[in-house]
Amino acid sequence: MNEDTRRKLTGVSVATLATALYKRGLRNQVIQGVHPVAPKGRNMVGPAFTLRYMPAREDRNQLSEFRNPEHPQRVAIETCPEGHVLVMDSRKSATAASAGDILITRLMKRGGAGVVTDGGFRDAATIGGLDIPAYHTRPSSPTNLTTNEAIEINGPIGCGDAPVFPGDVIVGDDDCVIVIPAEIANEVADEAVEMTAYEDFVIERVKDGETIIGLYPCTEDEHRERFEAWRKENGR
Amino acid sequence: MNEDTRRKLTGVSVATLATALYKRGLRNQVIQGVHPVAPKGRNMVGPAFTLRYMPAREDRNQLSEFRNPEHPQRVAIETCPEGHVLVMDSRKSATAASAGDILITRLMKRGGAGVVTDGGFRDAATIGGLDIPAYHTRPSSPTNLTTNEAIEINGPIGCGDAPVFPGDVIVGDDDCVIVIPAEIANEVADEAVEMTAYEDFVIERVKDGETIIGLYPCTEDEHRERFEAWRKENGR
Amino acid sequence: MNEDTRRKLTGVSVATLATALYKRGLRNQVIQGVHPVAPKGRNMVGPAFTLRYMPAREDRNQLSEFRNPEHPQRVAIETCPEGHVLVMDSRKSATAASAGDILITRLMKRGGAGVVTDGGFRDAATIGGLDIPAYHTRPSSPTNLTTNEAIEINGPIGCGDAPVFPGDVIVGDDDCVIVIPAEIANEVADEAVEMTAYEDFVIERVKDGETIIGLYPCTEDEHRERFEAWRKENGR
Amino acid sequence: MNEDTRRKLTGVSVATLATALYKRGLRNQVIQGVHPVAPKGRNMVGPAFTLRYMPAREDRNQLSEFRNPEHPQRVAIETCPEGHVLVMDSRKSATAASAGDILITRLMKRGGAGVVTDGGFRDAATIGGLDIPAYHTRPSSPTNLTTNEAIEINGPIGCGDAPVFPGDVIVGDDDCVIVIPAEIANEVADEAVEMTAYEDFVIERVKDGETIIGLYPCTEDEHRERFEAWRKENGR
Amino acid sequence: MNEDTRRKLTGVSVATLATALYKRGLRNQVIQGVHPVAPKGRNMVGPAFTLRYMPAREDRNQLSEFRNPEHPQRVAIETCPEGHVLVMDSRKSATAASAGDILITRLMKRGGAGVVTDGGFRDAATIGGLDIPAYHTRPSSPTNLTTNEAIEINGPIGCGDAPVFPGDVIVGDDDCVIVIPAEIANEVADEAVEMTAYEDFVIERVKDGETIIGLYPCTEDEHRERFEAWRKENGR
Amino acid sequence: MNEDTRRKLTGVSVATLATALYKRGLRNQVIQGVHPVAPKGRNMVGPAFTLRYMPAREDRNQLSEFRNPEHPQRVAIETCPEGHVLVMDSRKSATAASAGDILITRLMKRGGAGVVTDGGFRDAATIGGLDIPAYHTRPSSPTNLTTNEAIEINGPIGCGDAPVFPGDVIVGDDDCVIVIPAEIANEVADEAVEMTAYEDFVIERVKDGETIIGLYPCTEDEHRERFEAWRKENGR
Repeated sequence: MNEDTRRKLTGVSVATLATALYKRGLRNQVIQGVHPVAPKGRNMVGPAFTLRYMPAREDRNQLSEFRNPEHPQRVAIETCPEGHVLVMDSRKSATAASAGDILITRLMKRGGAGVVTDGGFRDAATIGGLDIPAYHTRPSSPTNLTTNEAIEINGPIGCGDAPVFPGDVIVGDDDCVIVIPAEIANEVADEAVEMTAYEDFVIERVKDGETIIGLYPCTEDEHRERFEAWRKENGR
Repeated sequence: MNEDTRRKLTGVSVATLATALYKRGLRNQVIQGVHPVAPKGRNMVGPAFTLRYMPAREDRNQLSEFRNPEHPQRVAIETCPEGHVLVMDSRKSATAASAGDILITRLMKRGGAGVVTDGGFRDAATIGGLDIPAYHTRPSSPTNLTTNEAIEINGPIGCGDAPVFPGDVIVGDDDCVIVIPAEIANEVADEAVEMTAYEDFVIERVKDGETIIGLYPCTEDEHRERFEAWRKENGR
Repeated sequence: MNEDTRRKLTGVSVATLATALYKRGLRNQVIQGVHPVAPKGRNMVGPAFTLRYMPAREDRNQLSEFRNPEHPQRVAIETCPEGHVLVMDSRKSATAASAGDILITRLMKRGGAGVVTDGGFRDAATIGGLDIPAYHTRPSSPTNLTTNEAIEINGPIGCGDAPVFPGDVIVGDDDCVIVIPAEIANEVADEAVEMTAYEDFVIERVKDGETIIGLYPCTEDEHRERFEAWRKENGR
Repeated sequence: MNEDTRRKLTGVSVATLATALYKRGLRNQVIQGVHPVAPKGRNMVGPAFTLRYMPAREDRNQLSEFRNPEHPQRVAIETCPEGHVLVMDSRKSATAASAGDILITRLMKRGGAGVVTDGGFRDAATIGGLDIPAYHTRPSSPTNLTTNEAIEINGPIGCGDAPVFPGDVIVGDDDCVIVIPAEIANEVADEAVEMTAYEDFVIERVKDGETIIGLYPCTEDEHRERFEAWRKENGR
Repeated sequence: MNEDTRRKLTGVSVATLATALYKRGLRNQVIQGVHPVAPKGRNMVGPAFTLRYMPAREDRNQLSEFRNPEHPQRVAIETCPEGHVLVMDSRKSATAASAGDILITRLMKRGGAGVVTDGGFRDAATIGGLDIPAYHTRPSSPTNLTTNEAIEINGPIGCGDAPVFPGDVIVGDDDCVIVIPAEIANEVADEAVEMTAYEDFVIERVKDGETIIGLYPCTEDEHRERFEAWRKENGR
Repeated sequence: MNEDTRRKLTGVSVATLATALYKRGLRNQVIQGVHPVAPKGRNMVGPAFTLRYMPAREDRNQLSEFRNPEHPQRVAIETCPEGHVLVMDSRKSATAASAGDILITRLMKRGGAGVVTDGGFRDAATIGGLDIPAYHTRPSSPTNLTTNEAIEINGPIGCGDAPVFPGDVIVGDDDCVIVIPAEIANEVADEAVEMTAYEDFVIERVKDGETIIGLYPCTEDEHRERFEAWRKENGR
């Protein structure tokens, strides 16, 4: 993704992006059920790099498996490109962990832009304190081997019932995470910046006591003109 | 509701109110599954003003619908009377949002006493910072049009499996939200104030190391007498 | 449990303990779905003392039942031995409360080491401020009589789908709670201390930019030697 | 609805109708989770007449309520027009019944075309033997008063997460039930008849051993021609 | 239970019994979510004999455990008194079986009146063909050891969220199963027989085309008189 | 798989196979939540050929996609080898269909040994009448495009929380479906045949009125001897 788009996406909310995708007929791009391990007050932005889990079969998931340098979970951590968001399909189950603090610390050191699982992290209290955005459904201490086997790196997956293709642009704020198809990321970013400007204008008006009727959405010329003036004034 | 009742209800917990209703045979008045977007450390109190959502049909729920000044969601925000709590029946689904920060800011400016949904809010991080109590199940960024159509204002609804009739008195604390039938709100408020006095007395005793047997509930004259003395002493 | 084991268990994470049990073929010892009412930043450790709830039958669960000094819920609070953790089988339902602030305050005063329910607490905001670790699934204001009858003290129970026998050692951190069978608590504590030392060493290495391959788990002699040196240096 | 449309809809499957609606951008018109109380081997077809339940409040839902001749549940049964399908919004809960055999027998005698609830019926074994199609999620013996209060007749509702407006055309087969918006029922019926003819042709071909590639959907002129010949031959 | 009560309870529906209990303030006595493995067309009636499962710990639940002649699951089968219904608290989980065809055959041979689990049976297709009523949530082939440990015989339990005390009278029909507290079984049986007579009268009237208003429930003297005549005529 | 193993597996139950796998430490091989569309009274047996669905993105899942001869769902049907069982990972969702009667008829004609989805089939009533075993969770009429995109053929998947690798041996009876790892299929088949012989012997004994203690499992020499005699007599 280009840096201009990344920059734009750091300044808009997932809610605004969800509406921009809704206009394009995409209704299921928000990853359902995940939230920040700890709110960061800033957006997570980056292309998706994926890891898929399948149900664990006991004979294939002994602790000794981690000694294998090719174990997909560890390889995913070590190969996720800088600036990318690692997105894990944990089959919407937090019965066991998707990863823990050691792996997420390593991902952070390698320049990962963030991590999302539709399961849960172990060592979540520690992960919340790291300087990397992380999203999950709840803390979960059991090792992932208990219920999940890492099986595929960087293929198409589902995460929280949203479709995720490698390279799709992932954006997370303090509420939610959304998946923007790679091919429309630039235009969506542009549109979301515009929408955000208008929403910021609206919030000011509403805080001044104005009604939302006619203002949000804008159906009156008067508001359109005031908005244009406001933009100039505020350099938006 | 009268101001005396409102004042009394700001000083009692939802737990105490739940017990007062339990005595009257009302067992399902707590709105299940909702919590404060951000704890306020003070009670939300007000009569219910309701909004009902039904499942969205795509052709009736395009973004352009919001341009209609009669759209029930926006009308609900603009007509909720001052001091009332807006209660939304979102069919217990947070797949899409019940409302966002612009609408809740407007509700706050109009004097709304609070807002409750058994779905989720978008812009929840912002809503949590507003000076209006808000309760939901989790943040949810997609526009409500994605799954819900606002269909009726101020009729009887369900919210979190609790029955809510317009005018019922809604009370929320940092734990939960409860629905007090309008016709018994005054007597329940009176009783809850009495119960709270005794509970406060009990907590002091327990912190001093006393057993709860005989004390909570009170089954001994000795405690009854000490409580009466305590009330005088503490002006309760 | 002996004090040495208690001390060791205060310094290890539930995640590490889960892995130590996993090695022994025990995969379901984490109490699923519970979290701290308020994070304490320190571990809860103690032998389990249990209370079992069954579904409430209305005629057996009127408020007057609490006047009975033999009511099992109150007796559980008053007989839980010092240093023990009270673990409640609330049938994984938080529709009504498992207990409230008065009872938990009493438990704290009597020296209880903590309390866990797979339901929810009423007065949770207050309980979170007490100096006793408490774990639940969510706040719940209705009195327990609404859906649950306390029926048995200190028998074997399920809690969050984990098996709990009286005397099993319960450990909770800011993420999760785990149940260690009494008969292996000492050896598991020893092993977890060892594992924690290595994990702390690894985290330092990873923060210095090293790869996890070969390091975590340790498959190279070099790391083994560096770890031994690190232990001496750090008194571990 | 006109009789021609009714006749056409008796000869097509809900699956085919779902695809016809999908083409028009309507993706959520199948009532999720319901099945026939007993398969009838023929379609249920009729305009929707609706009943909405809300959560029951104990003081409003004593058995004596049924003595009220205006009780909405009974009035719904006695006013549902001949040839209509009674659709009940039971809040997707089968904890208590939506109706029983006496009411459904009365509905049958009055000429009702069928009945659907997203809850459950009591006396389901008997209802399954009546000559009226009935759909629910599972048998449920408790009286509806236990959890549900009938509150509104013939308003817009949700049923199994599908939107239902009075007059929408309801079609049920041995698999599922679908809601066709009233204003497109005729055109959808026409299209479904056409689709069904082709599907019947395809099934014959496939039973003869042909591949589905090119045939289903039809992408080859050869199949188009054979289909036309087949139609003439079979009077379709 | 006396034989007269048993006989009466074989001739009434669970729906009627649920209403009789509802009148007495008992609203949660139907075992939720279970259905007959195969409908028998006749009622299951008998006092409850109970078995409680708790979550399985792997080291306590190896296959060799079944070699223990004191294993509670097997002892429950071998000690359930003739004419009793074995009710199993399987923690509402059908991930593994509650029992299989060999044990249920043995129960049948010993004179058991029926069996209910809120989990699932293995060999369900075979059990459905036995001459003993059996109720579960769904077939489940894994041995119970996989997730459940039989821990207690004939104590108070929950089954499908209903409270069950040993000796309570269990009645099942082709729809559902209900738990009648032992101390009111006789009076409830009497009342249900009366209610059933009136319901049978009503069904005849409704099949003849009469309205339910005034008839069900009976609010008119005319119906009362006709009912009395009908009873004489039909020997009810 | 060899024909001898196939033959053996047609004569044993999934319950017996589940126990045989349990002995080997494999506890999660039963596909949870699926049942036969219509019971066949005979076993489904064959190696797994898999299809994986991911969440649908609207722009990639228009009806026109089916015109693509490379669409994975159709290719899966046309390439599933004779004698194999097609196993679909539908993400445990039956909101939309996994397949319908035309595709399953084609699979049958091509010699497929059966089909399993952890979602639902459309045209299920028709599929139930075909001469091919089919397992699902419930009928579901909406086209799969509504929520699912077929994305991968014959890779490792999860189905009903069980791990499925291509080539694993799938066995289904009238209760459930189980996944036997390919590498142990022969030995498990052998053992299950032995176990079945003993179980059949036991059932006869139990039907004759014998106790299960000592007999099931066999802990007495006497039973061992009688079993050997029975085998000779019955040619087992």
